[in-house]
Amino acid sequence: MRISELSERSGLPVQTIKFYIREGLLPKGTASAATRAEYDETHLERLRLIRALREVGDLSVAAIRRIITALEDPGVGLHDLFGAAAYAIGPRVDAPDDDPDWRAAREQVDALLEELGWRVTGQAPARTVLAQALVALRRLGFTPSPAALRPYAEAAAALAEHETGLLREDTTRAQALRMLAASVVYDQVLVALHRLAQEDASARRFGPG
Amino acid sequence: MRISELSERSGLPVQTIKFYIREGLLPKGTASAATRAEYDETHLERLRLIRALREVGDLSVAAIRRIITALEDPGVGLHDLFGAAAYAIGPRVDAPDDDPDWRAAREQVDALLEELGWRVTGQAPARTVLAQALVALRRLGFTPSPAALRPYAEAAAALAEHETGLLREDTTRAQALRMLAASVVYDQVLVALHRLAQEDASARRFGPG
Repeated sequence: MRISELSERSGLPVQTIKFYIREGLLPKGTASAATRAEYDETHLERLRLIRALREVGDLSVAAIRRIITALEDPGVGLHDLFGAAAYAIGPRVDAPDDDPDWRAAREQVDALLEELGWRVTGQAPARTVLAQALVALRRLGFTPSPAALRPYAEAAAALAEHETGLLREDTTRAQALRMLAASVVYDQVLVALHRLAQEDASARRFGPG
Repeated sequence: MRISELSERSGLPVQTIKFYIREGLLPKGTASAATRAEYDETHLERLRLIRALREVGDLSVAAIRRIITALEDPGVGLHDLFGAAAYAIGPRVDAPDDDPDWRAAREQVDALLEELGWRVTGQAPARTVLAQALVALRRLGFTPSPAALRPYAEAAAALAEHETGLLREDTTRAQALRMLAASVVYDQVLVALHRLAQEDASARRFGPG
């Protein structure tokens, strides 16, 4: 296809596509004439991935280039590729340097993950996000035990298992990465559905018959 | 207890407590001497609730006063009380006035809730939050079917059922409201655990043995 069609199908302006080519995020098209290049479905899929990383993770061109480099390196396995993208996308929070509440929360997170037996690196940004939530709950007068956190861990594990199961033999690495980026939007779906389910549960238990 | 102890146990400065009394959010203490007032556990619980509403929902004094008025009115049932607080806490997004993508997403939300049989008012802000996420997914090239949304709806329903089950006979209305506010923080717990569970699922399926 011509660059105009690539622009229309990706929803990205021609100028943006040319910028991505100059920045090395998108391979050049195949020259079909002196001033014409042909693009194919792999270019379209790459553009969709770049768009997803920019819109969902608000990633810089440099951060996207690192992910693209890993994507194109057949020596980087799918698990490491997911890790590079997931840690870049975030969310991410900074822990204060020397706060005893934070330290206690972080230890609770480490103990919970060990108890669950989850294979997660020590650098996973979500460990700090979880610790931040535990600090906030403590400030509200709640001190969730591992047992109180378990229903949330089980719901999260069931969804992760479902999502991993959506990857088929013919799913490309670029598609798989785009699905990973979309799972951040699915978290907004999940939170909205949680609010709606709470209203329904309250209506059934406390509402007018 | 004296106001100094109430301050220490609630974590709120004495000035803030006096401000809440002036604003009608907190009942006066019982006069035990010309210049001394006594406070009890109901004052402490009320302060914890006010703090939760301010910190989690970023609510104004006026918005908190409306919730407190409903809390103190025995004619307002628990379901309506929850609704007043939940709709005030949010999250909330504004839909653009006349956008066909939004209209389609909103219709999809309405159809999904009808199919699920959930009792949710047409004014629930989470309907718009969900519609916004569906618009974002469409922009990323995904058009989730009702079947694709079902695992998220099931996870949300299971958590809502669990949370409603935590309310006991002796749970006060103020405590129940504070638990509702805390469930917003539990959503951050859930999202962080989802990221961690994804890493674990990826490690088990694609990682090094």
